[in-house]
Amino acid sequence: MDAPLHLNDDRLFSADATVRVIARELYEAVRNLPIVSPHGHTDPSWFALNAPFENPAALLLQPDHYLLRMLYSQGISLTDLGIATIGDGDANPQRDAREIWRLFASNYYLFRGTPSRLWLDTVFSEVFGLEIALSAASADRYFDRISEALERPEFLPRALFERFDIEILATTESPLDSLAAHRAIAEDSWGGRVITTYRPDSVVDPEYENFAEHVAQFGELTGQDTGHWQGYLAAHRVRRRFFKSLGATATDHGHPSAATADLPLSACESLYRRCLSGQADAHEAEQFRAQVLTEMAGMSLEDGLVMQLHPGSYRNHNAPLFTQYGRDRGADIPMTTDYVKALRPLLNRYGNEAGLTLIVFTLDETSYSRELAPLAGHYPALRLGPAWWFHDSPEGMRRFREQVTETAGFYNTVGFNDDTRAFLSIPARHDMARRMDCNFLAQLVAEHRLPLDEAGELAVELSYTLAKRAYRL
Amino acid sequence: MDAPLHLNDDRLFSADATVRVIARELYEAVRNLPIVSPHGHTDPSWFALNAPFENPAALLLQPDHYLLRMLYSQGISLTDLGIATIGDGDANPQRDAREIWRLFASNYYLFRGTPSRLWLDTVFSEVFGLEIALSAASADRYFDRISEALERPEFLPRALFERFDIEILATTESPLDSLAAHRAIAEDSWGGRVITTYRPDSVVDPEYENFAEHVAQFGELTGQDTGHWQGYLAAHRVRRRFFKSLGATATDHGHPSAATADLPLSACESLYRRCLSGQADAHEAEQFRAQVLTEMAGMSLEDGLVMQLHPGSYRNHNAPLFTQYGRDRGADIPMTTDYVKALRPLLNRYGNEAGLTLIVFTLDETSYSRELAPLAGHYPALRLGPAWWFHDSPEGMRRFREQVTETAGFYNTVGFNDDTRAFLSIPARHDMARRMDCNFLAQLVAEHRLPLDEAGELAVELSYTLAKRAYRL
Amino acid sequence: MDAPLHLNDDRLFSADATVRVIARELYEAVRNLPIVSPHGHTDPSWFALNAPFENPAALLLQPDHYLLRMLYSQGISLTDLGIATIGDGDANPQRDAREIWRLFASNYYLFRGTPSRLWLDTVFSEVFGLEIALSAASADRYFDRISEALERPEFLPRALFERFDIEILATTESPLDSLAAHRAIAEDSWGGRVITTYRPDSVVDPEYENFAEHVAQFGELTGQDTGHWQGYLAAHRVRRRFFKSLGATATDHGHPSAATADLPLSACESLYRRCLSGQADAHEAEQFRAQVLTEMAGMSLEDGLVMQLHPGSYRNHNAPLFTQYGRDRGADIPMTTDYVKALRPLLNRYGNEAGLTLIVFTLDETSYSRELAPLAGHYPALRLGPAWWFHDSPEGMRRFREQVTETAGFYNTVGFNDDTRAFLSIPARHDMARRMDCNFLAQLVAEHRLPLDEAGELAVELSYTLAKRAYRL
Repeated sequence: MDAPLHLNDDRLFSADATVRVIARELYEAVRNLPIVSPHGHTDPSWFALNAPFENPAALLLQPDHYLLRMLYSQGISLTDLGIATIGDGDANPQRDAREIWRLFASNYYLFRGTPSRLWLDTVFSEVFGLEIALSAASADRYFDRISEALERPEFLPRALFERFDIEILATTESPLDSLAAHRAIAEDSWGGRVITTYRPDSVVDPEYENFAEHVAQFGELTGQDTGHWQGYLAAHRVRRRFFKSLGATATDHGHPSAATADLPLSACESLYRRCLSGQADAHEAEQFRAQVLTEMAGMSLEDGLVMQLHPGSYRNHNAPLFTQYGRDRGADIPMTTDYVKALRPLLNRYGNEAGLTLIVFTLDETSYSRELAPLAGHYPALRLGPAWWFHDSPEGMRRFREQVTETAGFYNTVGFNDDTRAFLSIPARHDMARRMDCNFLAQLVAEHRLPLDEAGELAVELSYTLAKRAYRL
Repeated sequence: MDAPLHLNDDRLFSADATVRVIARELYEAVRNLPIVSPHGHTDPSWFALNAPFENPAALLLQPDHYLLRMLYSQGISLTDLGIATIGDGDANPQRDAREIWRLFASNYYLFRGTPSRLWLDTVFSEVFGLEIALSAASADRYFDRISEALERPEFLPRALFERFDIEILATTESPLDSLAAHRAIAEDSWGGRVITTYRPDSVVDPEYENFAEHVAQFGELTGQDTGHWQGYLAAHRVRRRFFKSLGATATDHGHPSAATADLPLSACESLYRRCLSGQADAHEAEQFRAQVLTEMAGMSLEDGLVMQLHPGSYRNHNAPLFTQYGRDRGADIPMTTDYVKALRPLLNRYGNEAGLTLIVFTLDETSYSRELAPLAGHYPALRLGPAWWFHDSPEGMRRFREQVTETAGFYNTVGFNDDTRAFLSIPARHDMARRMDCNFLAQLVAEHRLPLDEAGELAVELSYTLAKRAYRL
Repeated sequence: MDAPLHLNDDRLFSADATVRVIARELYEAVRNLPIVSPHGHTDPSWFALNAPFENPAALLLQPDHYLLRMLYSQGISLTDLGIATIGDGDANPQRDAREIWRLFASNYYLFRGTPSRLWLDTVFSEVFGLEIALSAASADRYFDRISEALERPEFLPRALFERFDIEILATTESPLDSLAAHRAIAEDSWGGRVITTYRPDSVVDPEYENFAEHVAQFGELTGQDTGHWQGYLAAHRVRRRFFKSLGATATDHGHPSAATADLPLSACESLYRRCLSGQADAHEAEQFRAQVLTEMAGMSLEDGLVMQLHPGSYRNHNAPLFTQYGRDRGADIPMTTDYVKALRPLLNRYGNEAGLTLIVFTLDETSYSRELAPLAGHYPALRLGPAWWFHDSPEGMRRFREQVTETAGFYNTVGFNDDTRAFLSIPARHDMARRMDCNFLAQLVAEHRLPLDEAGELAVELSYTLAKRAYRL
């Protein structure tokens, strides 16, 4: 017999009846607010082209590194999951999508206790109307039902965007990207608001593959002389303006550490030359990235783009896997991350500017109460990004609020980010965040630490308003 | 319509009915115990002079860096809050106190979810009898009510001290302080017990402004030759004796790190000379502070003063703010802090002495379960200070007990410290600690991890007895 | 009047009625499952000789460093607890066991809130049938009752092993151990399964006392030329084979850090020579241990022994105590431990091998969510050991599940280890783990994060099956 798939309406709320009743009340007022998604990695061409999604495995499994990593950790090969090796080149080995789906389904029990399970069950139930649980036995039924749905007009990207009530969706692009998809969307009569974000890592990180070539291309694209530091900065200014013209309100910076620097001009020039020449050592590369962050903050103060920084990931930790399958396969591992000394040069230069918004994320939860909440609870320019990557989960969100709120309050945080490529799970992720925040507020109310009416105001702030305000949307 | 200000009698207790009933029972037995405040920063001249407090802003807002930092983080200038710049010298710019209070009131919502909000509401309600919540609308009513109260005799410092049922209140003074206020209190017929604490940072830290001058003054004051290491140590001994004669039972040390050292005498002498000459580098300054901590432990073993150490703050992180407004404006930020290697020299020299009490605090909560509880659960001399600075909050206190108790037990902790300049909030802070501790104990009872009668004994220990015993009061 | 000793049947379950009812149901199905103890430090000669245990202090107090450390931390000397000093040599000072027991009993209140208290109460109640609480007043009654019991056949080691329903018990031995006790057990008709574990620290750590002598002995014992690197590796292979023949399914490695290395052969040879010659500095010693770990992983892939690694303890932190009383007296203190960079060489060499099982433990809880769960949720070879040493407690187990599960799931963990010398407490420790796991699962069910039937399956996995599978038992 098949196990039922049932989403309890009280899911994620406390088992305690007092707290639960309050959480429910708070949640009812925010559950249907539009989705504001200011930070994510969906593909804008989905909305530009509005073509049908391919198949269940390609849509739900293969782009989701949370799923790939767990399956891989239990001995399932990425090849069996349909992931192409570098050797395959662009030619995806075209494994049978149904076989891949069956493999996934028969290992679905591995996700017990993880947020992936909760998101997927929500997608299965709410988007596809499935009523039995996913398992080896139900794999084919799932595959057929989802495949059929994907052929229908109401499952086209734009239709889903509207059905999900997404008010705004930000994607992330390289400065070298033509933004063709975004231009197509802007020129189209469709009303959906899909905007870009300026993510310059490939021209900021001297250790990025082919850095010098990227910088040369950056110069051509902008008509600036990127052979020199001032031209390089000018190229950023030009390209930021272009991104802004296509809706961007923010930049996004993924660095190994949170290091920032505030070097004299001459040092910048010579450091830049060494980086371009490929002779920079690890320390110089770090210094360069650090200096550029401070420059980016200065430009944000000029052009109003909100700055996002998320350091602390050891990218491509598994060298053999990287060689075989490339980036973003679930082998990025968080590291201990310092913010206090690292951010000081930037904050001492620009941190007292209320006109700047710098949103900082962390993969190292120990920094919540020790560093980030005290910093954000002091510097006017600083805000804290939500619980994120590995921590965008019920316990992760709970720890974030418990460890941040007492020192930084709610108003130095910026609402929720889904940060995902998994488009269909966006409503499920925002719903989880709203439920967890309402439950946290309900706990405060139940323990007489906050009046109910103020909790109601905060529920709206955390679900909707703070994100719009912080990201200037 | 104004929102009511109502302190629920069950505030801070668990929403769970079983736990709450037990917490209430435990709390009833300790809520009215006298306050023992062995570590704080109130001004002893308040009690020596017994003059009326100035105005609501000067009493409640301006000395409280938790309030200043949050308001500043949201773009409110310190000048608008009436904080003098260094340029103003001693001349406070005399902004209108009522205007400052209004600014504070209209931003009071920023403190939702913070302990400051809970303390202030308790002060407003219990000390001033206010019955509506603070907001822009009620700002003037608050200002008038509090201003009027402050003119009445029952709001004079000594009257409040008695009303608060403070059994003992420790302040903190530099070795260069004449202790005039403490002498005045001692010679007065008033029975309140206000004692000093020996806080020698200004003559221990070579990186302190004007270190060498302070040391010279230290020599004059004590009649010792502080040009040499032995004379310097002798000066400490003399001054500790003087502090002890005015009630001190403890010393207090705020260092950047927990480093201690146990160097040979000749190395101490030469290190001291370099520090005095201003030629010591950062490492030597660290070594010097480290060595002095070990010397202080030795003196504590001689004279019985309890030693307190609280490392790990990056002082004056915001350089522009420091230049403009000076110290203690909310820009001190916690750092990762090691205790295991840092404390070893001192502990290997004196840690096995049951006659020594060394109370260690942390700003880095990761050290609770990893380092501090294991250390305090082993060394006879070591005790753990309570959740403190940024963590003297409901969640902070909960984490402290959850992460410390299983390894160090309750008897290697020392009760609560309010550590505050905000005199009026002292009862509210102790009440919060008592409630949180009773709730923690109630949880253990409800989960059958501790019998109720033993929880009752512990509630008294944590609220009152442990502090008296640990601080030898 | 004596306080009663009563073990509530709902102990350790949530106070919340909804959660508690579910926890109870889950627990009922696993409470009587056999005990699988794949990692511990009991003495195999107990089961080989089956002689009566000596007396209450020698059985319950003196081998338990959790008890010694807490008593010592409150100023009780180890000598008064009957611990021999090095100066005493093998001659235990023979303090009166009853006096020692009285001293322990009168300080039993120190253990309030600690797991030791819960384990001991369970032993007192369930093993010895005591019905009053331990205190100064009941000390003699306890001593008499336990002493009498120990003379009876049903309290002999083998009888208790059977009564405890231990399916398998692993001990830990040095490669230099003759395994005489294990051979005796294997040759005996008794059916109890007591197996050894290969713990080669004394021939792997160049900083271990008498390292070179141990290695020479290692060569003699195995007939290999341990004067050279290849002979040294061959000796490991020989000795691992021998351990395996006496039931070992695992190796166990206790290192200061998690450092691993993957050096070229020539570097290994010269590094080995420096270590043997006693000329290796701290960095070289670290490199050597790091390289041997990687070699051990390679051998595990060959011979199938599961590899366990538990880094991060600062051994013998208290030098004066070490000099006087020797190792393992409660003075080992956890340190900050990096896994991300440290494990990379080993994981890049062998981490993608599904045929290898490497179980990693931590003393630094900050690594749970930041490093260990992300690593174990990716590398096929990696599994996470349970909450352990200082964290094998209710709150410690709760934090482990809360911080690990969302990223690594349940199936990258390996069930519970008791890791103890305190034989009588083994059932109490496993019972605590089962209760805490059932309570955690019940919480997930009550918050609608996991269906009840799946929680039931997981309860069996966490209590029994995962340990058998992970350790290949």
